[in-house]
Amino acid sequence: MNPYRPQLSHAASAVTHPLDVIDECGRTQSIEIPGERPLTIYLDKKELVTLMTIGGAPEALVLGYLRNQRLVNDLEEIDSIQVDWETESAAVKTKHKNIDIEELTSKRTVTTGCGQGTVFGDFMTQIDNINLPSEVKVTQSALNQIVEIIRTHPSIYKRAGSVHACAVFRNKHDHVELVYFIEDVGRHNAVDAISGMMWLEGMSGGELIFYTTGRLTSEMVIKGGQMGIPFLMTRSGATQMALELSQKINLTILTRCSGKHFLVYQGAQRIIFQPTAVV
Amino acid sequence: MNPYRPQLSHAASAVTHPLDVIDECGRTQSIEIPGERPLTIYLDKKELVTLMTIGGAPEALVLGYLRNQRLVNDLEEIDSIQVDWETESAAVKTKHKNIDIEELTSKRTVTTGCGQGTVFGDFMTQIDNINLPSEVKVTQSALNQIVEIIRTHPSIYKRAGSVHACAVFRNKHDHVELVYFIEDVGRHNAVDAISGMMWLEGMSGGELIFYTTGRLTSEMVIKGGQMGIPFLMTRSGATQMALELSQKINLTILTRCSGKHFLVYQGAQRIIFQPTAVV
Repeated sequence: MNPYRPQLSHAASAVTHPLDVIDECGRTQSIEIPGERPLTIYLDKKELVTLMTIGGAPEALVLGYLRNQRLVNDLEEIDSIQVDWETESAAVKTKHKNIDIEELTSKRTVTTGCGQGTVFGDFMTQIDNINLPSEVKVTQSALNQIVEIIRTHPSIYKRAGSVHACAVFRNKHDHVELVYFIEDVGRHNAVDAISGMMWLEGMSGGELIFYTTGRLTSEMVIKGGQMGIPFLMTRSGATQMALELSQKINLTILTRCSGKHFLVYQGAQRIIFQPTAVV
Repeated sequence: MNPYRPQLSHAASAVTHPLDVIDECGRTQSIEIPGERPLTIYLDKKELVTLMTIGGAPEALVLGYLRNQRLVNDLEEIDSIQVDWETESAAVKTKHKNIDIEELTSKRTVTTGCGQGTVFGDFMTQIDNINLPSEVKVTQSALNQIVEIIRTHPSIYKRAGSVHACAVFRNKHDHVELVYFIEDVGRHNAVDAISGMMWLEGMSGGELIFYTTGRLTSEMVIKGGQMGIPFLMTRSGATQMALELSQKINLTILTRCSGKHFLVYQGAQRIIFQPTAVV
């Protein structure tokens, strides 16, 4: 059975710009820098929010935003999303046009997230509904493979810097397969776009591993949990609240993932350590 | 003349936590991780927003947030700020209790900023009012000094990672003096706290240089401009929109500041290049 698909535009746009800069020796250098543009979401013609994005996957970004902010609970409720860069807008049509934006957006929490700081509604009340599979395991060599795939993947970051990457991998126990790789000027745009893509494909998170170049803060753990993904990996670190939340929902957190190095903050029982994978 | 000072609590709190983690060899390591806690701002008893912060300078953070979101235009309008970590709240009392939160917060823009993604109101309309001094200059050796001061400054980052630092320096042409150094889990908290401190001291930005470890996105340039600071430096990069905005307000942008290296994206006329400062 094919999953339901809303009508979507295909407005992915160019994402870097050339620039001549002057270095410390007074020499001109030609570099690339990432684009950053506003995209205002209109939900049934009502203005919802303006996201600042690189614009590489705008329809998936809007889908994931609506999902992660819990503004829309069922993909089939979304009739269409039309992104138009001329007007810097994303028009979302729902089937029943009965979403009460005022009610849903009345509580604002400004989190530490890059990109999408705002979380509407009371996110924390949802945490009891999150059930991550406890029996899922991954081998150390599969973790090493993730770091290596990210390291060698073509990226905007390597060309232009100033973006965060998020990726999900399918966990095949002793190896992994890259499913999505998304970069954006804010890491929360990247995670939302991945969430939107998963929603479109009807993909659940239990067999996935989430990787990000950005720090793990409370909001990243909440989003990972919402997607049902039991593993969060980062090249960077994590905050105390990210740790506490991941303990509550039993999410495995790995930080400082670089080369073969990593630190397990919580949930080590899901990792099959292999001494031979270190050398 | 002493500038006006609202009554402020002194609720700066412990900012890192010890944690035992497991590394790739299965060994236990003891590390520190930064705290991250909610702080809900009540403006004349009305709930405004919840910020996620490390909690190192909460009163200045609240002040700078109110200033940078343009919710309060005059420091003297603020009677007191009482931060209470027991209730995770910051109670702001104004003198006239006539600030219309609904009106001021009706437009939401979720920007790429870490920490404080939300910008209330139409920030962009303000840009024409920004006038940065064009005659101010800084020498290359003073820029090198900034990088060196940051490198050797005691920091949460060095102990625990996962925070961004912002700092302002007084520009003495051929050398600099560190004025403020603030770290937080979101770089926008750090810049807002600095803005709050400047507000308290009645300090204008024309003679200052702003440094951040985080990326320069549109919001950082807007905040730098609002504070009247003509120089923004980052260890990281900048986006296309940050560049465009800085061109509009003639703000000097330096990226990739590390050791003696930097790249000038815009506003090079304010820099006095010194070939001897490179070696």
